[in-house]
Amino acid sequence: MADTPVFNSGGAAFGRGLMASTVSRECDVAVVGAGLSGLTAARRLAGRGKKVIVLEARNRVGGRTESVRLGNGAVGDLGAAFLGGPHHKLMALVAELGLAMDKHPGLGDSMAWIGGKAVRYASYDANLDDEAEADIAQGLERLDAIGKSMDLTAPWQHPDAETLDRINFAEWIERTLHTEGGRRVFNKMVTAILGVASSEMSALHVAWFYGTTDSFATAITNRDGGWDYSLRDGAQEMSNAMARALGDRVILGKPVHRIEHDGAVVRIFADDVLVRAKRVIVALPLHLTGRIRYVPPMPAARDAIVQRAALPTLSRALVRYETPFWRQEGLSGTALTDHLAPLLVVDNSPADGTCGVLAAYSDGAAGRQAWKLTPKAREKQTIDILVRAFGPAAARYLEYVERNWSDEEFTRGGATPMFGPGVWTSFGPAFAAPVGHIFWAGADTATCWNSFLEGAVQAADRAVDEVLASLA
Amino acid sequence: MADTPVFNSGGAAFGRGLMASTVSRECDVAVVGAGLSGLTAARRLAGRGKKVIVLEARNRVGGRTESVRLGNGAVGDLGAAFLGGPHHKLMALVAELGLAMDKHPGLGDSMAWIGGKAVRYASYDANLDDEAEADIAQGLERLDAIGKSMDLTAPWQHPDAETLDRINFAEWIERTLHTEGGRRVFNKMVTAILGVASSEMSALHVAWFYGTTDSFATAITNRDGGWDYSLRDGAQEMSNAMARALGDRVILGKPVHRIEHDGAVVRIFADDVLVRAKRVIVALPLHLTGRIRYVPPMPAARDAIVQRAALPTLSRALVRYETPFWRQEGLSGTALTDHLAPLLVVDNSPADGTCGVLAAYSDGAAGRQAWKLTPKAREKQTIDILVRAFGPAAARYLEYVERNWSDEEFTRGGATPMFGPGVWTSFGPAFAAPVGHIFWAGADTATCWNSFLEGAVQAADRAVDEVLASLA
Repeated sequence: MADTPVFNSGGAAFGRGLMASTVSRECDVAVVGAGLSGLTAARRLAGRGKKVIVLEARNRVGGRTESVRLGNGAVGDLGAAFLGGPHHKLMALVAELGLAMDKHPGLGDSMAWIGGKAVRYASYDANLDDEAEADIAQGLERLDAIGKSMDLTAPWQHPDAETLDRINFAEWIERTLHTEGGRRVFNKMVTAILGVASSEMSALHVAWFYGTTDSFATAITNRDGGWDYSLRDGAQEMSNAMARALGDRVILGKPVHRIEHDGAVVRIFADDVLVRAKRVIVALPLHLTGRIRYVPPMPAARDAIVQRAALPTLSRALVRYETPFWRQEGLSGTALTDHLAPLLVVDNSPADGTCGVLAAYSDGAAGRQAWKLTPKAREKQTIDILVRAFGPAAARYLEYVERNWSDEEFTRGGATPMFGPGVWTSFGPAFAAPVGHIFWAGADTATCWNSFLEGAVQAADRAVDEVLASLA
Repeated sequence: MADTPVFNSGGAAFGRGLMASTVSRECDVAVVGAGLSGLTAARRLAGRGKKVIVLEARNRVGGRTESVRLGNGAVGDLGAAFLGGPHHKLMALVAELGLAMDKHPGLGDSMAWIGGKAVRYASYDANLDDEAEADIAQGLERLDAIGKSMDLTAPWQHPDAETLDRINFAEWIERTLHTEGGRRVFNKMVTAILGVASSEMSALHVAWFYGTTDSFATAITNRDGGWDYSLRDGAQEMSNAMARALGDRVILGKPVHRIEHDGAVVRIFADDVLVRAKRVIVALPLHLTGRIRYVPPMPAARDAIVQRAALPTLSRALVRYETPFWRQEGLSGTALTDHLAPLLVVDNSPADGTCGVLAAYSDGAAGRQAWKLTPKAREKQTIDILVRAFGPAAARYLEYVERNWSDEEFTRGGATPMFGPGVWTSFGPAFAAPVGHIFWAGADTATCWNSFLEGAVQAADRAVDEVLASLA
């Protein structure tokens, strides 16, 4: 690969944000974003003999995965953490990379703190009578039936797309669920992993989302679903391992601000680096793809869907204990609350038994309420909720770390955009369609396990297939 | 003002997108965006003795106003065009600039083509019985009452804010209107000037929007409302006149890509221009403010509201005739359709009688449907609708020009963001709040006649007041 320093490029640099001292590199395929999706794409392309260069804005790889070492040396995940049996592409990648996975213990009852009362339960939610359970079952059946009857690459073509995309999920719940308990479970729990209130999402989008995970039950279970395993060295290690193998083909600390794609060669500008490539894969959160300037500009529909791809707000905190004490009492470590952050807590302890770790997700309005607190007060609120859920032992924690993903300049939320009414039926075809020599990856564009680690890999594979076909 | 060419700035340029040859300028207040709002702010600041520099991405000023000369020499507006009696700030500016206004004739019946039938009517809509008229009256009263009981600078503080922001406007209509005709008028007409389906907007937002125009009736009327007058030389002439007076303090063709605001001096980077200023006013559509990189980055809430500020899709076409022939038949030139673009047609003829001009707005789903047509087919569809509304004389047009504002790289839609459920109550305080030395203008941030020309001026005045107070 030829590295050509271009000094004082003068007139030619006009309008392109070129530095006084610019390094120019050439490759077959440039990748923007060294998250799991971008690096998977680069790895696959390199494996097919293509010259690749990956440009990453941060000084680390991994995107929405971020693994940290806790005080006792255990690894904790501040971002995406779990994977499962149905994640075939991801499992294959983990095996290729020679990384170890640990099974989630996944046993025991859950706790909920709802209406000011802590309740222990073994089903979807506390306080459900038979009628509510039956209601939930029929509601889930109807939700899953929509996803299963849908071409997940074209949800706007579903026979009921117009109707479903005109109403929000809250309205769909109102029409479909008939018990108070059923509605509560749908409004709180079915939306818990989405990070957005049911009133803010299109019903079509929710059905599509759970369609990409096969069903709601599959999406949330740790028994052959989305949450069976974690990576022993942390989820970020997948990206670290791929980046190590790619070596100097991965360039850190270079946010791409401009892509010129008016000719046979695409020019990608990132501070003082200029990459010339035959094709480019942009593997960013969908909304961040709009913060790059394209010359020529994107078509109206592409720009419009990007304008409507806000990421939910999301924080994740890890709380470390001497041991996973909750297991002794037959508890799974899962807890739900109904109004205060964190709204969802799960057991994220390392398998070697060196400590107990609870991961606490704070999203939606409750999570944002906690933004207003001082870090100390937010920590206290989290511990208070853990005490209510798991008893006084939860107060004896050893460490608390948190990451507010909405603060992260190069992510700005998580996990995946939740489209409001009208987006799919108005702009659907522009969702992931290549524009000239520009292709799109990233878990946001996945049509299989959207937003999950598996989705990042599936989107990468799809983009790589598109690029290879276009180069053939 | 010192203009310092900085050649070969080398190391200092690192990470800032500086050109090999960069021109550096200094001022008290930099303004990003030479639309009506940005230029009004610059003019007011200059009038107060401040050194200003305005950076504009396009090679013209005026932003969402754009006036063109039609084939016969008449002036036509492809963007914002109308102003009215209640627009006190705008009226004062027009007088200051010595520009002439013409009164909209505003007489006669309107036409609607609904359910495949053309109907002539003198009220809000065709085919309304007394019951529907009464229903509409009570619905409007309730909608306006919310706006009037609201602090328009803080809609999230309204006593019913949580409830109203949880439902979309379609749901509010369902709950508030009781007749089929009333619901139709609310779903079609009350949303007609907003460009977004009632299912896509928060009920709180719609109430707030019409609160900023005093009432729905005021917003849509051309009798002491939002549509009384047009500018004889076109609405863009306001910006042209201000830019002429500012002279070389307005710099065209320089899209700002980076703002550094970590010290006492703000540094604004736009291609090969670097402006150093004490303060900066960013006067862009809200969503485009997110396409600038800020160092340090924006707070999470600011970034989040910007992510949720998509502009509706919007096109405007002008159709020129020998004469405003519709007036002879007692028609106002206003027409509404219920499913095909253009959805709204208004008389936009010059007052001197040299020709007749109909302005046709295509927004929402119907407008986007027309994107798929060839320009010729889209023109034909528009003329067909005019013929259905105004008879065979409408087929004898002399000229057709159109502007799809969603295609415009430096606007990307119009007229103003329509927030979905949850945005105001989640992120409201970040709507227009200054961040350090950065202040926000633009009609999107107006709390008085939001999205109208008046709003652009009101937002500019508010930002100027904030800047002056912070410099005092």
